[in-house]
Amino acid sequence: MAESMQGLKRSHRCAELSKANIGETVTVMGWVQKNRNKGGIVFVDLRDRSGLLQIIFENGSIDEAGFEKAGKLRSEFVIAVVGTVEARSGAVNENLATGEIEIRAREIRILSESETPPFPIEENSKTKEELRLKYRFLDLRRPDLQRNLMMRSKAATLTRQFLAEEGFLEIETPMLIKSTPEGARDYLVPSRVHPGNFYALPQSPQIFKQLLMCSGYDRYFQIVKCFRDEDLRADRQPEFTQIDMELSFVDVDDVIDVNERLLAKLFKEILGVEVSLPIPRMTWQEAMDRFGSDKPDIRFGMELVDVSEVVKDCEFVVFKNALENGGSVRGINAKGQGAMPRKKIDKLVDFAKDFGAKGLAYIAIQEDGTVKSSFAKFMSEEEMHALIEAMGGENGDLLLFAADKNKVVWDVLGNLRLEIARQLEILDKGDYRFLWVTEFPLLEWNEEAGRYTAMHHPFTMPMEEDLDLLDTDPGKVRAKAYDIVLNGTELGGGSVRIFNQEIQNKMFEVLGFTREQAEEQFGFLLSAFKYGVPPHAGLAYGLDRLIMLMAKEDSIRDVIAFPKVKDASDLMTEAPAAVDRKQLEELGLEIAKIEE
Amino acid sequence: MAESMQGLKRSHRCAELSKANIGETVTVMGWVQKNRNKGGIVFVDLRDRSGLLQIIFENGSIDEAGFEKAGKLRSEFVIAVVGTVEARSGAVNENLATGEIEIRAREIRILSESETPPFPIEENSKTKEELRLKYRFLDLRRPDLQRNLMMRSKAATLTRQFLAEEGFLEIETPMLIKSTPEGARDYLVPSRVHPGNFYALPQSPQIFKQLLMCSGYDRYFQIVKCFRDEDLRADRQPEFTQIDMELSFVDVDDVIDVNERLLAKLFKEILGVEVSLPIPRMTWQEAMDRFGSDKPDIRFGMELVDVSEVVKDCEFVVFKNALENGGSVRGINAKGQGAMPRKKIDKLVDFAKDFGAKGLAYIAIQEDGTVKSSFAKFMSEEEMHALIEAMGGENGDLLLFAADKNKVVWDVLGNLRLEIARQLEILDKGDYRFLWVTEFPLLEWNEEAGRYTAMHHPFTMPMEEDLDLLDTDPGKVRAKAYDIVLNGTELGGGSVRIFNQEIQNKMFEVLGFTREQAEEQFGFLLSAFKYGVPPHAGLAYGLDRLIMLMAKEDSIRDVIAFPKVKDASDLMTEAPAAVDRKQLEELGLEIAKIEE
Repeated sequence: MAESMQGLKRSHRCAELSKANIGETVTVMGWVQKNRNKGGIVFVDLRDRSGLLQIIFENGSIDEAGFEKAGKLRSEFVIAVVGTVEARSGAVNENLATGEIEIRAREIRILSESETPPFPIEENSKTKEELRLKYRFLDLRRPDLQRNLMMRSKAATLTRQFLAEEGFLEIETPMLIKSTPEGARDYLVPSRVHPGNFYALPQSPQIFKQLLMCSGYDRYFQIVKCFRDEDLRADRQPEFTQIDMELSFVDVDDVIDVNERLLAKLFKEILGVEVSLPIPRMTWQEAMDRFGSDKPDIRFGMELVDVSEVVKDCEFVVFKNALENGGSVRGINAKGQGAMPRKKIDKLVDFAKDFGAKGLAYIAIQEDGTVKSSFAKFMSEEEMHALIEAMGGENGDLLLFAADKNKVVWDVLGNLRLEIARQLEILDKGDYRFLWVTEFPLLEWNEEAGRYTAMHHPFTMPMEEDLDLLDTDPGKVRAKAYDIVLNGTELGGGSVRIFNQEIQNKMFEVLGFTREQAEEQFGFLLSAFKYGVPPHAGLAYGLDRLIMLMAKEDSIRDVIAFPKVKDASDLMTEAPAAVDRKQLEELGLEIAKIEE
Repeated sequence: MAESMQGLKRSHRCAELSKANIGETVTVMGWVQKNRNKGGIVFVDLRDRSGLLQIIFENGSIDEAGFEKAGKLRSEFVIAVVGTVEARSGAVNENLATGEIEIRAREIRILSESETPPFPIEENSKTKEELRLKYRFLDLRRPDLQRNLMMRSKAATLTRQFLAEEGFLEIETPMLIKSTPEGARDYLVPSRVHPGNFYALPQSPQIFKQLLMCSGYDRYFQIVKCFRDEDLRADRQPEFTQIDMELSFVDVDDVIDVNERLLAKLFKEILGVEVSLPIPRMTWQEAMDRFGSDKPDIRFGMELVDVSEVVKDCEFVVFKNALENGGSVRGINAKGQGAMPRKKIDKLVDFAKDFGAKGLAYIAIQEDGTVKSSFAKFMSEEEMHALIEAMGGENGDLLLFAADKNKVVWDVLGNLRLEIARQLEILDKGDYRFLWVTEFPLLEWNEEAGRYTAMHHPFTMPMEEDLDLLDTDPGKVRAKAYDIVLNGTELGGGSVRIFNQEIQNKMFEVLGFTREQAEEQFGFLLSAFKYGVPPHAGLAYGLDRLIMLMAKEDSIRDVIAFPKVKDASDLMTEAPAAVDRKQLEELGLEIAKIEE
């Protein structure tokens, strides 16, 4: 039986009370975390989003009926309590913000009762994620999720405040847009008014924000939902949130400057972490060469070393072949891991194979200086020596080598160094290392399609000094593109945009668009380019990932209120679901018969 | 030919400069509004989002090449200018924020050229809206639209700032949700992973925000896109934006209090308008009786008067029938309109018929006291006299009467008084009159469906004193619902929610849901209700309409960057559009053959 709160008004949230309030009469409301009867006194831990507060019910301080009610409380009952703040009679609880006080209740109302929840409401839940997501409304009561969502709200607030102060306007772009074939798969929305036609949900507001620059809005931002109908990986959701921005009359440095200050503000005000500015920058080429990744985790070294020169004359056929095919031989030095058991090394070899390596060559230097190696027999002693020296190998080190096309070598060693770091548990989630990666390749060759595709998107500006290469060697053209990387995760990325019709047309040409296709897809953008376009550039962050890293979580599902699971379904609401026949009829759609 | 801005950095926006900057060297960038050559000097009005700035190019101050370039400028060229701020040599332009200064250019770059735009970039455009929307990227350059979108951005920023200070958390709710049959028509999104199943786009985050209250988030808000697949009226869009909020442990007064202060802040800081608090409140019943509307425009009187009692014995069959059928006879007094020509009165009669009136009875009191009336012959002189007196009729007044069921009478007279006010042009858009309308009926009878439907939604709490009526006379039950009305427009509305499972089940029963249907549709909400629910209440604003009123516009399309038109299409991008066969195949969908 639920009582009404009529006549009561909450005076404080639970953890807003402290010693300063001793003697005051307060009214608090929340959920019963636990209650126990000890020596004729009922102790209740009351919970709200601010934290916990101890309430004591003692016969005499509260009337008989109230005392009886308190005795019947169970976990997750919602109650309102009027009482007096007192210094805690028992031991001070130092784990609790309100550990020095308690409320002596003189009135209680049970606003809502509760059945026993399917799992306990507590931090670091060991409950299976599926059950948590089915009862997400209970899962969301857990203090760690509440902290995450409060942090997310604060991050959004601070971002907006900062960008507003920097002259950005928040302008909403449409959710029901036109489908474009480039990029990931669109979610489609059938039109009822125009049967057989569809809207798409935006993968990003890219074109609209560029149009806003054409329209003179100068600085735009939006924290906005975007959609991709892709098969989900651990850190992907069908709908995700971007902090999206675009600036006019700027170049790379301007975008980087404002975003560095934004990040510094967020980390300072939310985590108390000082981000020292400027954030270091690294070209894409350097990132690949040193870390085998375009999003290097620079919390640790174990950098890649190109030993192609050193081994170029050796007889080891794996190295030889790689070099002859235009590839390279590179290695990493796992310092102090020379004694790694063979079995563990074999697992690293398997790991490397998952990333396309045909194998992994190694040299394990024992503490006594002897060397175990998978390929020693193919090398002279001098060659071996030179190789170890090139790798900075010392007694006790483990040297691992990959030999293949550059792309494979980077990918294998880049991932291997992360894997070893994870195994060694040297990655501190609280050690935030930012990095700008710049000068990305403009294009990448798509084997399947037999043509170049845009590495970022078709509107990315080539570096001026590489413009001529567009005709002669498009794969070599570098872009005015930049990613912001944190601890090996790409937080966001962007570029200076093409604002010149000729370059844009050239770009479409290189991407294999016919003039008609370009016109069909981006006609309005090309049209806008005819009427005076400012130089402009932008950037977008994945908000979910940013908050995940700030909250030190491993899954973005822990920083999203109502996430979806791998098959893009919602375990709580059971969306997607079948709909009425009538709804489909109105849309002029039929469900295709599945062929047996 | 586009020049690069390399080496230049904008120092100010155009209208950020003033007399205080005289003597400074500045770099400005923007669009050429107009240019003219006068006495060998080229005058250019440069435009950016901040406003206009005059630039002068004089041979000698700038080199020959630069002077020549300036001479070739045309409207909408994008240029960068380096120059010195000087006091204006010609007459001061008082219409311009920068009217006292000009920039003497010493360098110019043409960053982007422009063809002649299809319509001029200027305020109060007389261009047809269709053309404007096709070239929305140019339309959006017009200063009035820029002001509107900047106001919108500021309103969103202030709202978020205010609500954050009040302890609200901004929490994102999903866009891909489950379709529910209640309410308006959903936009559907086919699932690829689960062929034959669909998500829906949210009509509002209603259920999710209630779940967040169950989860203890205490105060939630979001500025969020919502979707309704309805045939569009002038002030509707398929996607629209809500300021959405929900609060725990509160009652009606708490919600009203925080929202009054929010509105006062917005109007003060954006328009300099003081909203005097508290905002007056009126029950739904009073609003209907006095204004014939649940969103009364209280900028003027012309209130409805119930004269049923006065005319109950007269012989006028229209009045008689109405009263005998349980209806009423009511009138409005259009003061001073007694001399309205018959033709104009006839038009009002037609107008009334559009709202379901069978006719409109009138008494035109001439300045000399004589009376023209459509029904005088059915009335005795005393009856006529009593009627005029009841209406406060004086010489020169026009009295208009409707007789029918209450609903029709309210609707007819409510709209008639607005129409007359419009004709008299007494509605000042700058006179902001807020009003809370409270105690709405919980249910309305749906003739078609032969059952009650929820006036707001199925989660609205009945007034405690009317709870018993749910069983005996559901149509009489009043709800703890409230709308905030501004100048005859509903800005927003909300209610206290049911937080008690028994009342919720009873509500579903009255609405004709079977237990299975309720379970199927709202199972997770009903499940949440089992585990301790706080009393909660909320409210949602239509942001588009709010900004429309603040900006004194007549159409929400003028406060939305990329709006859609009546058939829900986007004239610029031409969405919705056909998609690739392959996309449909992946979704397991076919387009139904249209029967000839």
